[in-house]
Amino acid sequence: MQRVCFLLKVRADRLDEYRERHTTVWPEMQEALSATGWHNYSLFLREDGLLVGYLETEDFAAAQAGMEATGVNARWQAEMAPFFEALDGARPDEAMKPLTEVFHLA
Amino acid sequence: MQRVCFLLKVRADRLDEYRERHTTVWPEMQEALSATGWHNYSLFLREDGLLVGYLETEDFAAAQAGMEATGVNARWQAEMAPFFEALDGARPDEAMKPLTEVFHLA
Repeated sequence: MQRVCFLLKVRADRLDEYRERHTTVWPEMQEALSATGWHNYSLFLREDGLLVGYLETEDFAAAQAGMEATGVNARWQAEMAPFFEALDGARPDEAMKPLTEVFHLA
Repeated sequence: MQRVCFLLKVRADRLDEYRERHTTVWPEMQEALSATGWHNYSLFLREDGLLVGYLETEDFAAAQAGMEATGVNARWQAEMAPFFEALDGARPDEAMKPLTEVFHLA
C-alpha cells in the first residue's frame, strides 16, 4: 500500500465555493475513485488556499490512469480547473505530484 | 477518529539531515507516539522543505497533551527545533496547527 500526499493551490477568491462543492461531490465521482483504488482519501484546505491531498492506494500511477479513463473524471476536472491557481494548462489531477514520505508510524 | 493534517517548514539547508534523522527515529519516541494515540502517522517532505504531517487519532488535543507529558518528546523536540524555519519560539509540536478537512472518501 502506498501513502500518497500531494499539494495544489485553490484561488483565494474561490475558497468558499470550493469548500461547498466538496460537501456534495457527485456520487458517481466517489464511486469511480473507490473503484480505481483511491482509499482513505482526504483533502485539507489551509486558509490561504493551499490544498493537501492524502490517500492510500496499491499503485498511485494505476489509480491515476484508472480515473483518467473515466468520463466522470473528465467532467469533474473540467468543473474544478477554474478553482485552482497556476496549473500551467494541466488539469488539477495532472498536477498532483506526490511528495516524498520521510517517516511513517503505523 | 479524527484525521489531522498539519504543515511545518524545514530549513532548506538542513533537508538531508532531517531526512536522515527520520530514518532512525528513537524507538522510545515511536512507542510514546503510539501510546498517546498517534496512529497511521506520516511525514511528507517537498523539495523546498515544506513538511506535511498526517495522522489519525481519537482526539488530537489529547494526543498532543499526552506527548507533551513525556520526557522523550521534550528531548526529541529540542533536537528537532533547529531544523525548522520561523517557529517564533515555539517547539515544532507546538506549531502544528491542523488544516480543515474539506473532503473525505473512505
